[in-house]
Amino acid sequence: MSSTRALHLAARPEGLPKDSDFELRTRDDAALEDGQVRIAVRYLSIDPAMRVWMTEAKSYWPPVALGEVMRSAGIGEVLESRNDKFPVGTWVSGMTGVQETLVSDGKGMQRFDASALPHPGWALSLFGATGLTAYFGLIDIGKPKPGEVLVVSAAAGAVGSAVVQIGKALGMTVVGIAGGADKCRFVHEELGADAAIDYKNEDVSKALRQHCPDGVDVYFDNVGGDILDAVLKRLKMHARIVLCGGISQYNAGSGTRGPVNYLSLIAARGRMEGFVVIDYLHRAGEAIAAMTPWVQAGKLGSRLDVVDGMEHFPEALRRLYTGANFGKQLVKL
Amino acid sequence: MSSTRALHLAARPEGLPKDSDFELRTRDDAALEDGQVRIAVRYLSIDPAMRVWMTEAKSYWPPVALGEVMRSAGIGEVLESRNDKFPVGTWVSGMTGVQETLVSDGKGMQRFDASALPHPGWALSLFGATGLTAYFGLIDIGKPKPGEVLVVSAAAGAVGSAVVQIGKALGMTVVGIAGGADKCRFVHEELGADAAIDYKNEDVSKALRQHCPDGVDVYFDNVGGDILDAVLKRLKMHARIVLCGGISQYNAGSGTRGPVNYLSLIAARGRMEGFVVIDYLHRAGEAIAAMTPWVQAGKLGSRLDVVDGMEHFPEALRRLYTGANFGKQLVKL
Repeated sequence: MSSTRALHLAARPEGLPKDSDFELRTRDDAALEDGQVRIAVRYLSIDPAMRVWMTEAKSYWPPVALGEVMRSAGIGEVLESRNDKFPVGTWVSGMTGVQETLVSDGKGMQRFDASALPHPGWALSLFGATGLTAYFGLIDIGKPKPGEVLVVSAAAGAVGSAVVQIGKALGMTVVGIAGGADKCRFVHEELGADAAIDYKNEDVSKALRQHCPDGVDVYFDNVGGDILDAVLKRLKMHARIVLCGGISQYNAGSGTRGPVNYLSLIAARGRMEGFVVIDYLHRAGEAIAAMTPWVQAGKLGSRLDVVDGMEHFPEALRRLYTGANFGKQLVKL
Repeated sequence: MSSTRALHLAARPEGLPKDSDFELRTRDDAALEDGQVRIAVRYLSIDPAMRVWMTEAKSYWPPVALGEVMRSAGIGEVLESRNDKFPVGTWVSGMTGVQETLVSDGKGMQRFDASALPHPGWALSLFGATGLTAYFGLIDIGKPKPGEVLVVSAAAGAVGSAVVQIGKALGMTVVGIAGGADKCRFVHEELGADAAIDYKNEDVSKALRQHCPDGVDVYFDNVGGDILDAVLKRLKMHARIVLCGGISQYNAGSGTRGPVNYLSLIAARGRMEGFVVIDYLHRAGEAIAAMTPWVQAGKLGSRLDVVDGMEHFPEALRRLYTGANFGKQLVKL
């Protein structure tokens, strides 16, 4: 009988997740029942929301209980099958959890053709929840118009880099905010943003004044904190703030703070609106249909940042919050 | 030659406006030119935004310059006229400033029939910017539906009390938040709110759990601060927060703080949106047409809180920020 290793949530983290917040356990593999498949997990998607799932906060998903396998989106290959819809060798994408293998009845698992992608990991980035988040957040919540000014935070990150490219494909003026010269060069030169602001080495308010002299129409916010406050000071009339996340606040504990300049929304007649990608999963086809021609035209791509080995999951997760990742953070199993 | 007293802005206030932030000056009255009228100001409208106009902050109106007559909406009667559109005795409403009389060419001044109102001051409350703020904020930004749950802060105040009554007239469940037992009794018994929460003597979060067990669909926010944070924790899916003001923050100086729980907008797919009543002035007729039948049916009224004498303007203004006013705050000249 073979066995599987899985990472279980051992403690609710304070601040940045630590290695000791997780526990590696080994379990024996159960035999499959009719309709079930065994999936070998190949890549895990490391997402900012994971930090929220680890707390007791009510979110769009319940907290991960202490002792449970850590929740994660992932992709894998069917190893063993008693389900005709998922023959051995099929690539699937879904909530796999942080584990080497899992048994599934196929519910919630989407098959995909890995050979059609530049890398199977794209199913977790541009053609997964990451890409849908970028696409529907910008389109549905941001309601962008050609010629408008779009600002994107965490612009070198998985979602942000897609938002920058989609904004350019739509004919917007795009300013990306990222940390460090390398990421800013990537945002400007590779993603095609009109300008990039290095929040680690520049005064963001001053740089926004320079690059958005007439203000900001759409702000796609992945970070919250000081950057959100800086953009709030520069809103154009009827500006839209797309609240995608607040990564600067997720590890802040009792130091969490709200946007001090939120009352600027009054003078600007502005709107700040949250969304969650799971509401859009049924419209995935629409996003993929819109994005595919941009991919084919070389306007839209996806950079992956792969960490090797499940035991490095906590480290990969920390990379997100320290901004060490460069592109969509994955863990390879 | 007669003279006029006016209150000029003498200093930018820190915290609550002080008497010494204003200076009473007397000037000789100039003779009228063709097309001009002299207006005797009868009532001033005391509005939360005045505190913002006194700062150097860019808002929907420029700051009042040091030495200028303090800006104020008001109503008055035409004393002397060289303009056929405004005969002597006409009541007018407009930005009169804090002064006994002013000379105007009539631009920006609306005539109204004071005899048709229960009190001429209603032209500054329900049938003035206050009523339009309540009506368009709730209807246009809040997009209320019958049966939905509406929470209103500063519910005994000028705008809030109109919002409560309009919400009830539209068939909503309405919970008002106000300070003190008297105001809460007024909100519940006279305005007809289903429940009133006394923020000075109750735990607002707990009371919201009790009165809005299924959450809040629309929150009309006049105050910001802790109350906004408490409501953010109780948003229903697709909730709308109407940002009308943040009176708790206007005197806070460097202690200003944003809504810590703003990320709740993500899980709730909620929206927070600001508006300014001046965008709706051209639609005043629409609001008045909608509100008049409610007034006639006894569903909608306006309570006035009148302070006597221009020299008490600073005190009347402070009453707003300490919550001492009970109804629309006016100063009678």
